[in-house]
Amino acid sequence: MKKYLAEMIGTMVLVLMGCGAAVFAGADQPFFTIGTLGVAFAFGLSVVAMAYTIGSISDCHINPAITFGVYLSGRMSSKDALMYMLFQIIGAIIGSSILWFLAKDSGSTTTLTGANGFAEGKIAEAFVAETVFTFIFVLVVLGVTAKNGLNKFAGLAIGLALVLVHIVCIPITGTSVNPARSIGPAIFEGGVALTQLWLFIVAPLLGAAISALVWKGITVENKLATTE
Amino acid sequence: MKKYLAEMIGTMVLVLMGCGAAVFAGADQPFFTIGTLGVAFAFGLSVVAMAYTIGSISDCHINPAITFGVYLSGRMSSKDALMYMLFQIIGAIIGSSILWFLAKDSGSTTTLTGANGFAEGKIAEAFVAETVFTFIFVLVVLGVTAKNGLNKFAGLAIGLALVLVHIVCIPITGTSVNPARSIGPAIFEGGVALTQLWLFIVAPLLGAAISALVWKGITVENKLATTE
Amino acid sequence: MKKYLAEMIGTMVLVLMGCGAAVFAGADQPFFTIGTLGVAFAFGLSVVAMAYTIGSISDCHINPAITFGVYLSGRMSSKDALMYMLFQIIGAIIGSSILWFLAKDSGSTTTLTGANGFAEGKIAEAFVAETVFTFIFVLVVLGVTAKNGLNKFAGLAIGLALVLVHIVCIPITGTSVNPARSIGPAIFEGGVALTQLWLFIVAPLLGAAISALVWKGITVENKLATTE
Amino acid sequence: MKKYLAEMIGTMVLVLMGCGAAVFAGADQPFFTIGTLGVAFAFGLSVVAMAYTIGSISDCHINPAITFGVYLSGRMSSKDALMYMLFQIIGAIIGSSILWFLAKDSGSTTTLTGANGFAEGKIAEAFVAETVFTFIFVLVVLGVTAKNGLNKFAGLAIGLALVLVHIVCIPITGTSVNPARSIGPAIFEGGVALTQLWLFIVAPLLGAAISALVWKGITVENKLATTE
Repeated sequence: MKKYLAEMIGTMVLVLMGCGAAVFAGADQPFFTIGTLGVAFAFGLSVVAMAYTIGSISDCHINPAITFGVYLSGRMSSKDALMYMLFQIIGAIIGSSILWFLAKDSGSTTTLTGANGFAEGKIAEAFVAETVFTFIFVLVVLGVTAKNGLNKFAGLAIGLALVLVHIVCIPITGTSVNPARSIGPAIFEGGVALTQLWLFIVAPLLGAAISALVWKGITVENKLATTE
Repeated sequence: MKKYLAEMIGTMVLVLMGCGAAVFAGADQPFFTIGTLGVAFAFGLSVVAMAYTIGSISDCHINPAITFGVYLSGRMSSKDALMYMLFQIIGAIIGSSILWFLAKDSGSTTTLTGANGFAEGKIAEAFVAETVFTFIFVLVVLGVTAKNGLNKFAGLAIGLALVLVHIVCIPITGTSVNPARSIGPAIFEGGVALTQLWLFIVAPLLGAAISALVWKGITVENKLATTE
Repeated sequence: MKKYLAEMIGTMVLVLMGCGAAVFAGADQPFFTIGTLGVAFAFGLSVVAMAYTIGSISDCHINPAITFGVYLSGRMSSKDALMYMLFQIIGAIIGSSILWFLAKDSGSTTTLTGANGFAEGKIAEAFVAETVFTFIFVLVVLGVTAKNGLNKFAGLAIGLALVLVHIVCIPITGTSVNPARSIGPAIFEGGVALTQLWLFIVAPLLGAAISALVWKGITVENKLATTE
Repeated sequence: MKKYLAEMIGTMVLVLMGCGAAVFAGADQPFFTIGTLGVAFAFGLSVVAMAYTIGSISDCHINPAITFGVYLSGRMSSKDALMYMLFQIIGAIIGSSILWFLAKDSGSTTTLTGANGFAEGKIAEAFVAETVFTFIFVLVVLGVTAKNGLNKFAGLAIGLALVLVHIVCIPITGTSVNPARSIGPAIFEGGVALTQLWLFIVAPLLGAAISALVWKGITVENKLATTE
């Protein structure tokens, strides 16, 4: 139970801070706006912070796509996988509700929820982007946390990989690569965010499945051969 | 005594550099302004720098909210906790006085002290923001420095968590999450900064107390079960 | 074979993410553009992410200039060096083709491929810049991965060195320091990018050769004398 | 001899990349300018890159103020200290000469050399700023590299501390905290840069001396008491 609560808190932090950065990037700022780079850092540094906080409790997935990739790689039980996803979604909704309270009068000109979305006629680009970028992100997770990997650097490497994915993908979909991160804000946003929500569940899970497959492909023979 | 002096120096650096970045972000710049993201990095990198400098002497709290959370978690004596807070506040005042000398003729259009504050009618948002963001920040501190944590990464993880908190919270209150960091500049700013100061003492301490409670809640049973 | 595939995937990620950041930096953005600094971070963080993912499989060169420098330093066979370069180029082309699909309708006003280039009459500056900056970058690689180096920090140090090189060199050539990274986009860009392509192959390889020479020069006698 | 050459190369890289970033921040950019934050990162990441490259050869001072502080702390001979400073200055001049070639036609509107300086009537602020910020920077160096410090993190912590110092100090003096970094560009800049040069030699050395004193003060009694 403790590890499920840890996942809930971690995902709450990710959604509150990442989406919060996006909301306030469009609000009145005392200094110049943090811009897209600042929003990218907010999402990534949330993972860095949480990885070193709850990593020893739950491995800090805080993302159903990661949980799915880890499950497909045979590293966790199906019961744990389902519970992780459930508590991640609950955490995301809590994070969005706190953000809603803080942001409702912020006068942000960009977004009041940080919900994901794509422009009309760009569904193919959005689907490919979310699938490919989740594939890259979850591949990093699977590689960094592999037995012969450099575990202590995992939080930093995975968090910085999420910064990277946001730098490139924010102009396309706002960047999900995480169904829970999309579900929370969509509930408060409603409308188009809800009708497009399926893409931000299906594409990340597909990307994570490809990661599990590719990682298996490039490691099977190397298990014994790796040195250092 | 040495560790109290270390806390004084560390807090002096945090306030001088973090608030200094905020002041000069609004002054004439040879290149483009560092903006909100640069101010956020200044606060966070101050913690990174000091953590690896005085960490082995005093654990580098440089923040009464952290000291309060660590004290409530039973990891330090009440005498040390009080002395830490006292020297942190002295350090913050020294940092603010150096900044006052450097900045008094800077012509900054945003702030000359880096004092925290909130807009009229936004007291609820400010209180919730400071409480929640301090809760998140101190939770990171408690988690990262736990026995089974990854201690060598503590300075980096905690510093980057402070960057994160500033990215989101600067547009709301300028970001305190640290009573000493608010007291120093408020003395030099005077006026509204002094009348609002109570919030930047009470809310961070409340947030830290919640951290201590939540961290206890999600770790008690896991103490023996954690692996890595 | 597995390590060649790892190089292919890593270089694909580097080109897709780095050049992708450059393309979308010039497209319509929900928040302020990531700018040159964001593009620099995209290239560098791609290396950080891949280093901790495929580092234990292939050492994560993902750059023919690095492979050339490592080969000249006598740390890998000529067969492996050639295969690494081949798969790096294949990966770069795959990365560019994915980016072409995502970016073709992005309306970017700066670049649609992220191809390298230099202004008319600036060939000497471009050649010197690519040679010197590749020399610095590959010197970091050779130093960080030396036996008495700090191996676990390699991915971070090398990635941040690539951020550094991009900060300075983007205004000159867009920054190659990596022939594969130039070949991929040039194929999709055509025209001038193809006619200038030779420089982004020759200069980086020359820079890498100088690195191998200089590194040998400053380490030979120190091999036994170094203490941490 | 090898370690002196390493210091020369490291300082060359610091001056070329840091000052290069400053020059091109004011030149025509394909994307938005890197701004003050990008220049700050360029100086800091130069130290990160060089620390993990030549750290095992020469400890990577690449700054006469650091060498002075380390010498005053009794950690190196006077002969080595003098030779370090000499080769650092030679390296800085080489770095500036390469930058002069790359930047002479760049059309930068801010600086063509990256030379330090201060506005008329701001000599007191400049002197205090350079002294205090060098004190902070060298204190980090002395603390991080102390016997009971976290040595492997030294390069990262010191480099990020230099980013921090630049964020705050660029609007005041352009940030020296390093006499070699000021001497190189001043030679190519001439004029006021040369007449103000003394300040960027005296103040950093004074700051470093204070660091050595303060560090001794806060550690003497704790030498045996520190744990972890």
